[in-house]
Amino acid sequence: MKLTLPSGVTAATFSQALRAFAGVVGQDWVLATDEDRGTYMDAYAVGDGSDHVPSAAVAPQSVEEIQAILRIANEHKIPLWPVSRGKNLGYGEAAPLLSGSIVLDLGRMNRVLDINEKTGTALLEPGVSFFDLYGLLRQQNIPLWLSVPGNAWGSVIGNALERGLGYTPYGDHTSKLCGLEVVLPSGDLVRTGMGAMATSTSWQNYQHGFGPGWDQMFVQSNFGVVTKGGFWLMPEPEATLRVTIDLPQPDDIGWFIDEMTQLRLRGVIEQPFVCGNYLRQATVFSEREDWYRGPGAIPDAVGAQIRQQFKTGWWSAGFTLFGYEEVVQANAKIIRRVLEPRLGHTLKFEAWHRGQPIERSGAGVPDLLSLQIVNWRGGRGGHVGFSPVMPPDGKLALAQFRKMKARFDEFGFDYYGSFTLGHRHINNVNLIIYDRDDAAMTASARKLFATMVDDAARDGYGEYRTHLSFMQQVADSFDFNGHALARLNATVKNALDPNGILAPGKNGIWSKS
Amino acid sequence: MKLTLPSGVTAATFSQALRAFAGVVGQDWVLATDEDRGTYMDAYAVGDGSDHVPSAAVAPQSVEEIQAILRIANEHKIPLWPVSRGKNLGYGEAAPLLSGSIVLDLGRMNRVLDINEKTGTALLEPGVSFFDLYGLLRQQNIPLWLSVPGNAWGSVIGNALERGLGYTPYGDHTSKLCGLEVVLPSGDLVRTGMGAMATSTSWQNYQHGFGPGWDQMFVQSNFGVVTKGGFWLMPEPEATLRVTIDLPQPDDIGWFIDEMTQLRLRGVIEQPFVCGNYLRQATVFSEREDWYRGPGAIPDAVGAQIRQQFKTGWWSAGFTLFGYEEVVQANAKIIRRVLEPRLGHTLKFEAWHRGQPIERSGAGVPDLLSLQIVNWRGGRGGHVGFSPVMPPDGKLALAQFRKMKARFDEFGFDYYGSFTLGHRHINNVNLIIYDRDDAAMTASARKLFATMVDDAARDGYGEYRTHLSFMQQVADSFDFNGHALARLNATVKNALDPNGILAPGKNGIWSKS
Repeated sequence: MKLTLPSGVTAATFSQALRAFAGVVGQDWVLATDEDRGTYMDAYAVGDGSDHVPSAAVAPQSVEEIQAILRIANEHKIPLWPVSRGKNLGYGEAAPLLSGSIVLDLGRMNRVLDINEKTGTALLEPGVSFFDLYGLLRQQNIPLWLSVPGNAWGSVIGNALERGLGYTPYGDHTSKLCGLEVVLPSGDLVRTGMGAMATSTSWQNYQHGFGPGWDQMFVQSNFGVVTKGGFWLMPEPEATLRVTIDLPQPDDIGWFIDEMTQLRLRGVIEQPFVCGNYLRQATVFSEREDWYRGPGAIPDAVGAQIRQQFKTGWWSAGFTLFGYEEVVQANAKIIRRVLEPRLGHTLKFEAWHRGQPIERSGAGVPDLLSLQIVNWRGGRGGHVGFSPVMPPDGKLALAQFRKMKARFDEFGFDYYGSFTLGHRHINNVNLIIYDRDDAAMTASARKLFATMVDDAARDGYGEYRTHLSFMQQVADSFDFNGHALARLNATVKNALDPNGILAPGKNGIWSKS
Repeated sequence: MKLTLPSGVTAATFSQALRAFAGVVGQDWVLATDEDRGTYMDAYAVGDGSDHVPSAAVAPQSVEEIQAILRIANEHKIPLWPVSRGKNLGYGEAAPLLSGSIVLDLGRMNRVLDINEKTGTALLEPGVSFFDLYGLLRQQNIPLWLSVPGNAWGSVIGNALERGLGYTPYGDHTSKLCGLEVVLPSGDLVRTGMGAMATSTSWQNYQHGFGPGWDQMFVQSNFGVVTKGGFWLMPEPEATLRVTIDLPQPDDIGWFIDEMTQLRLRGVIEQPFVCGNYLRQATVFSEREDWYRGPGAIPDAVGAQIRQQFKTGWWSAGFTLFGYEEVVQANAKIIRRVLEPRLGHTLKFEAWHRGQPIERSGAGVPDLLSLQIVNWRGGRGGHVGFSPVMPPDGKLALAQFRKMKARFDEFGFDYYGSFTLGHRHINNVNLIIYDRDDAAMTASARKLFATMVDDAARDGYGEYRTHLSFMQQVADSFDFNGHALARLNATVKNALDPNGILAPGKNGIWSKS
């Protein structure tokens, strides 16, 4: 990828900055060839990715190097785009929002600084991946479990900082952050929570600290570069029980959400879990052309064949109960009492006990299986998910499903929808899978996405996380009192980063410069 | 209490501001007589309270009135001290940190704006007390339960904003906040979380929102006046089981903390619960002179008499299991399996089932019983608690107990200590009860407190919440990188409140002016 300079920066200034960066990290860790730039592009860009082109990357190995890099960036007014491991797949990967930004690649900072088996806490650098941490825990036989997202290449801390999800009781990753170390745009180094006390022995134990709680301010924002993160891990349970529930009819989503909401709220089911339509399995284990080569969205009759082949419902949902043997058994009994009369058949739970292979336990075991879905449409696969947050209400979920399904039909995409039940909310994921080599289809995907943002905002649903290409539109949909939150964010951004060098535009946050 | 003007404000300017306030809220709601000022003083001040004297109070009834008050305060450079209900007992009550501040009393804004029975959410104004909300839930027969702090006069939202605790699975009140409406010092009105979307239907459902999470930034800080708060309530369980555990020896705290840490971490016990020494009961149900009239701390032999009388251990802990019948039974079995071999006797659980009177359920039922403790020493009772956060580790807890007990002995106070077990941390509360009419004793209480702050900081323990009189010392104990967190807080404070009119000094946060 050819060089795009940061806006307002001359080639001479840019070169000078790169030389200065090389003085800090060594020439090998300043990556500025066409090929280098290509590796930091978004492989799943919604279009050709030319909206979000990095000019270079710099990869520090220490806090001091980051401080020096920020000083140079301030001097030269060059925007930096920090990534933990750059595997933010479906959301822009390593690519920056603002073209010409230099990617600040933290992948070399990958130390596991502490794991406390007794209290289930860890202190991690941002370059530690789910694979890394999982490997370490297994290798050292530490009975702590991970919760992993679909793509386990990514950073544990990075995922939590973007509000990624996994599927154990610790699946709301951002809520498991406990204390951060952050380099501010000024270069000042701060620790949040109890870590703000130099002698602290409780940094990873207590999330709130004394005074305002900063951790969530560094999430989905551009107020600092996180260099260490406290993170909570789940103690290995004695037993688990896993069950899959198939719902035959599209309209079943309504009653199912209502019943499950009560079970989630009352702690019978403790994990966020997905109830998704049959395309979730079809896209992982087959390709579209195995089923259909015609125009428009897959017809209902073909959908029926897919369901028959995979022996799955219109919707299906799987979840696991984790804990002591007698407790998971008691919870399974409650679930059966609630669901079996509605389903008309008995539920079969698959049991796991401590000592059996972890792969069938329901623990987070890193894999990349879900990346298969991008091959569904052929060509270089792209996927982008529109994920509004909704109240956990069956009637609303049913209406939302119908509305989104109609939009997919209208734009000629196969409806791939799911409802992830959080503690008191739903993430309604609408995944558009398209062929990046088909320019018309890509443009159509983009238009479908933008249409859904507006549809959802009209119903009072906002997104919780989004792809670079839609960050501004989604941020703009948060419009209370003439975008008061954006004004507040900008005021703080301006105070912390007056030159606007850190990830300008991320989640709609800009400084005045 | 005689008038103390805000620093740098003339009597004429002050009078002008009061007249302007009266123009906003009406003359009746500007409270500026000597008697008025007295009612906003701290009844439990550590000393005569002359360090924290309000000059007046103003009590608005709407967001618009608050905006107008902030405008006037900015114009006249007069500091405001917002209180929800002003019942922050033991931490300064309604009194301001900076003498001469005008108390912004939000007690009239006491509407319950929404309660959603199905999702367990509420939207409250800051003037709603625990008594108010409890009364409403019972009156309308809504099966949602409160978690209440010792003093139920206080504000639900105010308590959460100060990180108050209760004793159900919803006892970490601050973590149950979900979306705030805030008037910023500039007068701008912002809603956090999903409420930042004007049409939002999920404001009380999802805590994180899009972009940085602001809720915890308005906690224990002075960045805005919270005018509405989303708050999560616990669905009434089917059953509860309550148990009290007595530990005969002081050293039992060590093994007990270790065992209970694992039960807390694994969700067998879901509430924060207190393990406190025998003075917790003695101070509620008797007075010191019933037992001892001599000098210094109560001798061990008298302690033994107290324990015998109340049939209690050196330590005792009580907690409740909440949930479905078969789940609480299963959890009780696990607790018995762990504790009975150590205790050498069987545990007796007291059962409650839905439909029985709520008072014996373990639900939060507001009362004021714990306020009795202040009468322990006679005179006008004062109490102040030093509450450092610690890792949940028995060896550390035992060492901390011994160290604090020695300090109480040294300063001649009766040791009143407890360890509240949070999810992954301990709050070690050391409560000093003293006679405010005894100047020497009060001075000694103050000195004991200050000594404990330093003791704890040396061991890496910082406080999670503190009385006005110690806010600066505690804030100063958070000293990583030359007080980097204080610099960060000040930068944001300055950006949001350049005139420093909102609660200057709260939790150690000052703007440059």
